[in-house]
Amino acid sequence: MASLSTLTNPISETCFFLPKSCDLGFSRSKIAPFARSNIFKNSNVSSEGQCSSTFDVPLLSCSEVTERMRTSRESHKAKQLYLAMYSSVSGGITIDPAAMVIPMDDHMVHRGHGVFDTAAIVNGYLYELDQHLDRFVGSATMAKIQIPFDRESIRQILIRTVSVSECKNGSLRYWVSAGPGDFQLSPSGCHRAALYAIVIKDQSPPDHSGIRVVTSSIPIKPPQFAVMKSVNYLPNVLSKMEAEENDAYAAIWLDSDGLVAEGPNMNVAFVTKEKELLMPCFDKILGGCTAKRVAVLAANLVKEGKLRGIRVENVSVEDGKRADEMMLIGSGVHVRSVVQWDEEVIGNGREGPVTQALLNLLLEDMKSGPPTVRVHVPY
Amino acid sequence: MASLSTLTNPISETCFFLPKSCDLGFSRSKIAPFARSNIFKNSNVSSEGQCSSTFDVPLLSCSEVTERMRTSRESHKAKQLYLAMYSSVSGGITIDPAAMVIPMDDHMVHRGHGVFDTAAIVNGYLYELDQHLDRFVGSATMAKIQIPFDRESIRQILIRTVSVSECKNGSLRYWVSAGPGDFQLSPSGCHRAALYAIVIKDQSPPDHSGIRVVTSSIPIKPPQFAVMKSVNYLPNVLSKMEAEENDAYAAIWLDSDGLVAEGPNMNVAFVTKEKELLMPCFDKILGGCTAKRVAVLAANLVKEGKLRGIRVENVSVEDGKRADEMMLIGSGVHVRSVVQWDEEVIGNGREGPVTQALLNLLLEDMKSGPPTVRVHVPY
Repeated sequence: MASLSTLTNPISETCFFLPKSCDLGFSRSKIAPFARSNIFKNSNVSSEGQCSSTFDVPLLSCSEVTERMRTSRESHKAKQLYLAMYSSVSGGITIDPAAMVIPMDDHMVHRGHGVFDTAAIVNGYLYELDQHLDRFVGSATMAKIQIPFDRESIRQILIRTVSVSECKNGSLRYWVSAGPGDFQLSPSGCHRAALYAIVIKDQSPPDHSGIRVVTSSIPIKPPQFAVMKSVNYLPNVLSKMEAEENDAYAAIWLDSDGLVAEGPNMNVAFVTKEKELLMPCFDKILGGCTAKRVAVLAANLVKEGKLRGIRVENVSVEDGKRADEMMLIGSGVHVRSVVQWDEEVIGNGREGPVTQALLNLLLEDMKSGPPTVRVHVPY
Repeated sequence: MASLSTLTNPISETCFFLPKSCDLGFSRSKIAPFARSNIFKNSNVSSEGQCSSTFDVPLLSCSEVTERMRTSRESHKAKQLYLAMYSSVSGGITIDPAAMVIPMDDHMVHRGHGVFDTAAIVNGYLYELDQHLDRFVGSATMAKIQIPFDRESIRQILIRTVSVSECKNGSLRYWVSAGPGDFQLSPSGCHRAALYAIVIKDQSPPDHSGIRVVTSSIPIKPPQFAVMKSVNYLPNVLSKMEAEENDAYAAIWLDSDGLVAEGPNMNVAFVTKEKELLMPCFDKILGGCTAKRVAVLAANLVKEGKLRGIRVENVSVEDGKRADEMMLIGSGVHVRSVVQWDEEVIGNGREGPVTQALLNLLLEDMKSGPPTVRVHVPY
């Protein structure tokens, strides 16, 4: 936590300064009352009584704000590259990261009144775009947001945004919000719902090694909110942070009955001692697109005799912890072996063979699955 | 819901167009693959086979994005004016509404990892700034956000922002977020927490007339989340929308025990038949700054004999509905009489005298209260 000032009473200070930026882009008449006021007196006074201006909060023109945001972005070694962003507020696509912004008065920013979804970009194809888009439209309905364009137009805009980005491998994230308008709680002052989409290139290679999870102590959302993918992810963030603080990858939520629910942004599945793939029901958690696809792909393992069946039903913690294999499934995590849950080692403590086989099936499906799960991007 | 396109298969279309904006701010080499691609083929084809370009998603430069956002703002008859905004990302204050934006990758935008608070600006003074600031810092701690500056520096920045705005009557809203960084769930990739503040002038006059409330059917947040003022306000938004759909002003939450909790952005209080001011406990709801202040001011009514006492304790719905008076209390709503809750008329169905007296005490306090609740803004 940086201290900008050691001031106790700004009114009593005696040194003045005018930020350089003040005379750019504003008329003097606008500047004058600001420059004259004692709000510029704030400064550090050292023990020797010397005055240094460490509290510089200048008045900025629009272009200065943009340039400073650009500088701020460029000064950090980013793990991700933002290749293109669409915004229905500007009505177009930009490839300039400094312009990848959202109005402060958007109802999603200050009230969390927005929903989102994602889709992987693999070898120039969007993976499971339509499945994610269906969920996206469903989430919007649950959040009482009337989507600003019809589903097909949104689909075209998303594909176009990926095309402009020229990204062949990465991910597409998109949001619909109640839109900009005012800062009231009611969305009645919002002009129109807004659509935003961004194409992201992750700089770090995917990691599929076995991981540890813990049970989350953060309360799970009520079912009505858990089944929609809104940006109200503070419980998810705190759950992820709790995991990190405990040297774990994720924290697993239990539902109000103490049954296994989900991770903060992924589903959980198990391979029982009877070699059945077991997934918790989706009625109180987010219906995972990747989890549902993995359940379909798992049929191949049943045919091959590597699995005896696939069950979607309530899972107790006890049953989960004594499973042969445990895995996390999601568009970001793909299929990842859990080798330890809290203090319990899962199976033999190594990545399980079924989990590994499901990961390979998923990766193969992402690269060469049928047209129902792979949408070509015309670059 | 507007339909941008009636296309079924963009690949089969035959008409091309290049959005005008494409040749502004980008080199041809950058444009070429984009312009050549068939993503510009999307267009409406009328029954006569005529081609019209209704699906224009142009590539925009940074300045074009800004100008289009400005135009978008100006095209709406706004209920509110945004007079100044501070952002720690740009490190300054702007009075240009087109620059009042937040980076898309801010953890508050896409994960709701941010907290906020507010303070009224009355006759050039900030009302209860310090009380709200204490809650703000507390909310940040609960959301595991390390504030980017110390409390005193934040206070100075807020006062400075109001000063620059030249706003004498309005409100100040401020947020601290985990900051921009990446689109991951974990905030570990966020560069630094960010502070944002905006000064808003409401164009509509305050209304203190009696209102109707309903019981909310939207689940209340778990206590851990209800006691902090995060931007995860989707339950609050849906609760407010539910009220509006039922011609009510607000929907009242009951807690998990069925006791009276709070409104979506205000507290609830009652005047019992025994002439006591009764407020629900703050242990499972947001500790309202205005409600606490009203409880202090209510002591005047006890002295005058208009109230027999003030109690903060559990309130059943039955007790609430048979009270002589019911009111909502908050920085936005001030003190407002509830004359009907669901089908039950409260008291005699008119604005209650104690509620009215408390409103007057609050308005008086906002205008001429002690220095502990009124911070002078040096314009």
